[in-house]
Amino acid sequence: MGLGMGTGMKTGMTSLLNAVGDKDSRLLIGLMSGTSADGVDAVLCKVTGSGRSTRAEFLHLTSVEYPPEIRRLLLGDLRLLSCEEVARLNFLIGEVFADAALRCLAEAGLKPDNVDAVCSHGQTLVHFPEPDHPVIPSRATLQIGDISVIAQKTGMLTVGDFRPADMAQGGQGAPLVPYVDYLIITHPTLGRIMQNLGGIGNLTYLPPDATPDSVVAFDTGPGNMVVDGVVSLLTGGRDTMDRDGRLASSGRVHRKLLEHLLDNPYFKKLPPKSTGRELFGIQYSKSLVETAHEMGCETKEDIVATAAELTVQSVLRAYRDFVFPLGPVDEVVVGGGGARNPYFMSRFREELHPVRVLTHEDIGIPDQAKEALAFAVLGNEVLSGRTNNLPSATGAGKAVVMGKIALP
Amino acid sequence: MGLGMGTGMKTGMTSLLNAVGDKDSRLLIGLMSGTSADGVDAVLCKVTGSGRSTRAEFLHLTSVEYPPEIRRLLLGDLRLLSCEEVARLNFLIGEVFADAALRCLAEAGLKPDNVDAVCSHGQTLVHFPEPDHPVIPSRATLQIGDISVIAQKTGMLTVGDFRPADMAQGGQGAPLVPYVDYLIITHPTLGRIMQNLGGIGNLTYLPPDATPDSVVAFDTGPGNMVVDGVVSLLTGGRDTMDRDGRLASSGRVHRKLLEHLLDNPYFKKLPPKSTGRELFGIQYSKSLVETAHEMGCETKEDIVATAAELTVQSVLRAYRDFVFPLGPVDEVVVGGGGARNPYFMSRFREELHPVRVLTHEDIGIPDQAKEALAFAVLGNEVLSGRTNNLPSATGAGKAVVMGKIALP
Repeated sequence: MGLGMGTGMKTGMTSLLNAVGDKDSRLLIGLMSGTSADGVDAVLCKVTGSGRSTRAEFLHLTSVEYPPEIRRLLLGDLRLLSCEEVARLNFLIGEVFADAALRCLAEAGLKPDNVDAVCSHGQTLVHFPEPDHPVIPSRATLQIGDISVIAQKTGMLTVGDFRPADMAQGGQGAPLVPYVDYLIITHPTLGRIMQNLGGIGNLTYLPPDATPDSVVAFDTGPGNMVVDGVVSLLTGGRDTMDRDGRLASSGRVHRKLLEHLLDNPYFKKLPPKSTGRELFGIQYSKSLVETAHEMGCETKEDIVATAAELTVQSVLRAYRDFVFPLGPVDEVVVGGGGARNPYFMSRFREELHPVRVLTHEDIGIPDQAKEALAFAVLGNEVLSGRTNNLPSATGAGKAVVMGKIALP
Repeated sequence: MGLGMGTGMKTGMTSLLNAVGDKDSRLLIGLMSGTSADGVDAVLCKVTGSGRSTRAEFLHLTSVEYPPEIRRLLLGDLRLLSCEEVARLNFLIGEVFADAALRCLAEAGLKPDNVDAVCSHGQTLVHFPEPDHPVIPSRATLQIGDISVIAQKTGMLTVGDFRPADMAQGGQGAPLVPYVDYLIITHPTLGRIMQNLGGIGNLTYLPPDATPDSVVAFDTGPGNMVVDGVVSLLTGGRDTMDRDGRLASSGRVHRKLLEHLLDNPYFKKLPPKSTGRELFGIQYSKSLVETAHEMGCETKEDIVATAAELTVQSVLRAYRDFVFPLGPVDEVVVGGGGARNPYFMSRFREELHPVRVLTHEDIGIPDQAKEALAFAVLGNEVLSGRTNNLPSATGAGKAVVMGKIALP
């Protein structure tokens, strides 16, 4: 250890944060991995302004897959991972996130010094909105991919781990993207639903010229998670998704099974509400397949069609019960992996006509970049000294600055 | 949700961090809970300057116990906690840490606005300095007590979760207190060993007028952990420690058992090195008691005396093999719960004479406040924009700013 490297070296935390904090325009990298745990999306973007004046310009997207043995771990029952596995995954996934950021940067021809900050959602392991544990009476959420690891491995200021602050103020810690939708998607005269179909389905309703209090957002229920789980079970793990909705499109929906599935109390619960793998994970898919067989719904195609229609109907019911009563809906913008499923898209177009059903590309945002870009915008709010949760969506007692900061 | 509470409210991150960052003297609260998991120590202190000019003045100490069911969980095999338990404990322990900070503040007659920041070590669940897991090839450390929860519950800027940044640079993420010893205990003409005996024993050697490169620090092995574990096993959990060293003082050390225990490869390993509950936890105590019985060491007193002498001899061997060859030792300052164990203190005085064996009180720092105060000093370095690890102690590839920042 050379003396020149000595300790107590001034690295200028204040000056670094000042330099970043005072800017009106920042080059940021957003990092996201969803509940489907495919890997990490890294988005380079330019974010200008903050609050209602925010504009976000997409520049580059890189996706990095998890190593197969890690993905296998992440698709199991995450509640039962051991503390040792959690701790080691937190570091390993931090490195995967850092790699994704560096790869994105290199592909864009930039260096860490050119970028103001990395903004990381992390990988969700568990999310418990209720204090319903017999020994540990706490609500909790856990996103891993340690931000100190990301900051050290990339050499870039890192903001991340957004959800706990909202939960500490009584919020559900979810959904977080609606605040970003509110900042960058609100239209002066059109009512819009942003419908995301990742592992879980969630929506943001933005009435014309929305205010924070008029935005409504909640998880509608399953997105692709149940279809993916059912396909995986029925093909012995050979396929992990219904590519292009082929199985669903060639099957017939089993009405009795569908009604049974729609009877789930989650769909009736008033927003704000959030859910995840603990409700619609692989156990749910297993029990769906068992019930299907009991009810005489036997072919792979029919079971998948019914699982897919569960997503469609749970979304449509959410609109009918909780959105249409609030104001006009002119456009539904579908995002997430579900936007690439022709079964979902054609069913929504059939059922929602004359409302326009669009994709993110139709309004100028590459679909796969959307969530990672959203976390860059949330990080931009932190760096601008602004609160960045939407209490009307999360149920938090007040607006707070979500996110932790780690120095490079 | 009133519109006045609206989102995107400017909370002035930069101005808050500036105000704190530019100060030459800060009122800080340090929070610490050691591997013995008794509860949380909260220390209010005034820290002036930074780097080698740091001075730390102790003002007030509050200790808050964990609820018994939480302590019980924390004394089990923590590697095997489930992910759900880890996530919920992270929040619950964050609240206990926040309570401790607020109670300390109230007892000192202050309000959150009077204090510049909370600096929290958190509660260590696991620490894996080697990438020796079959599926997840990562080193890792996990300290819980979420800093966003602390910041939200206290309303104070919070710095914490120090260890990951050092590990991300190849360090062991421990020990961290030696950097603080170096800043505030270095003496111009005396050589000092700071010997902490918490659950684990660790030392910092500060030669006269030390430089960062001349400081040596490492974990010596068990502190109180093995004695505590053995007492707990032998009393069926009725006692959890050998109060005042009474059992050890009235027993006879079983030489053959002691030699067997000292044969552990950890004691021969060259520094820097660190250890914890995964090596000297309850499994170790169980096997110690079994081996004792096999070797004919039968009475409670003799087994405890041998376990206590293991701590003493492992410390003395560490001095002989790894410290005395480096430079003069004039004083050994014993801290941690072990400093209140007369068996340990009298054995050290017998064996080390004419070296002076002191307690922290003898050099002006209340013993129980030492570790929490140390984390306030580490946080003070973050707020001053300085690196705060000691690569010669942790083995890190470079000096880094350890710690994450959460805004209130």
